Amino acid sequence: MIFYDCSTAPSPRRARIWLAEKNVPHEIVQIDLAKGEQMGEDFRAVNPGCTVPALKLDDGTVLTENAGINAYLESAFPEPPLLGRTHEEKGLVAGWSSKIEVGGLLAVAEALRNSSPHMKDRALTGATNYAQIPELAERGLARLQSFFDMLNNHLEGRDYVVADHFTNADILAVVCVDFARIVKVKAQDHHENLIRWRTQLADRPSLSV
Amino acid sequence: MIFYDCSTAPSPRRARIWLAEKNVPHEIVQIDLAKGEQMGEDFRAVNPGCTVPALKLDDGTVLTENAGINAYLESAFPEPPLLGRTHEEKGLVAGWSSKIEVGGLLAVAEALRNSSPHMKDRALTGATNYAQIPELAERGLARLQSFFDMLNNHLEGRDYVVADHFTNADILAVVCVDFARIVKVKAQDHHENLIRWRTQLADRPSLSV
Repeated sequence: MIFYDCSTAPSPRRARIWLAEKNVPHEIVQIDLAKGEQMGEDFRAVNPGCTVPALKLDDGTVLTENAGINAYLESAFPEPPLLGRTHEEKGLVAGWSSKIEVGGLLAVAEALRNSSPHMKDRALTGATNYAQIPELAERGLARLQSFFDMLNNHLEGRDYVVADHFTNADILAVVCVDFARIVKVKAQDHHENLIRWRTQLADRPSLSV
Repeated sequence: MIFYDCSTAPSPRRARIWLAEKNVPHEIVQIDLAKGEQMGEDFRAVNPGCTVPALKLDDGTVLTENAGINAYLESAFPEPPLLGRTHEEKGLVAGWSSKIEVGGLLAVAEALRNSSPHMKDRALTGATNYAQIPELAERGLARLQSFFDMLNNHLEGRDYVVADHFTNADILAVVCVDFARIVKVKAQDHHENLIRWRTQLADRPSLSV
């Protein structure tokens, strides 16, 4: 299969971690977002939505959106399970993943894309240009601070976001916390649980991607 | 199990359709969002995130976010499958569901919550108040028009959003298209595929909820 990546971007990093955890052989094609290659004809023929990550399967099926890539990989390569083992765990992993995506990753994206001079008119990913909204950048920063507090509280007494093992909820939280540095938000001294959890994961090989 | 619903809101409608499709017995507790009951102590003890839908299982586990409820129900009550049958279908259903959620449902929510006088300071769901951003309402409307065009093009020659059967991608698209009327966006005459697809689903019992 062919993995369409951009090595500097947080969204494809989620898929990179998945491919590493599942140890799935794949070719990599780098799409340089800084040069706008996602809008070029070549990549548009792969994903008309003009977003990475994308995963082209051997039968030609193209999967887009992290959710799509994750659901396929979990089904086709079940070990190690990243979306939960039991019915209940599956519900909790998906619920927490959604909370982290909306409350954390989307907040960083709002803060960055609506303020960076390099992202003028690129307030959203995808094929269409949208103007920056400075108030949305401010709101993203405020939401991100709340998210760090909430996640820190949740991690009290826990080694992982859900259950007793590493799941997609940890992957999303790691990518969010690492990515947040780009808008100068990081764990503060009082975020003891968050700092302990991230430190415990520091040596996990899949997270070095 | 206990289903925390609000019969007038689009987000819990997604879970209502799931429970009807899977024919899962459940009690219903109505949370009146117009009266702010989601912020009250009673519901906050169930879901500190103050959002519906939520599903409390018999063992006391509370699942929040539609993604969490869907993942649990698909695992515990596999028939009929709503998240895809094969590896590839699972990837496509999850990918399309994500696209419809972000490009469609979120666009309606942005348009409504950032413009309605009834939703002052309720630009986002959840426990925290956020001021309306008029530019975000405008952007939501523009995105929604693009989404209708995109979905109409995708439905050319298709009876369902993904594969040859009804899935979560259809549920999301139905809830989005129906909900869009609240911001006065509806399928236009040239959206022939979209109109045909919605008409074909008109008699499906689960969609009457």
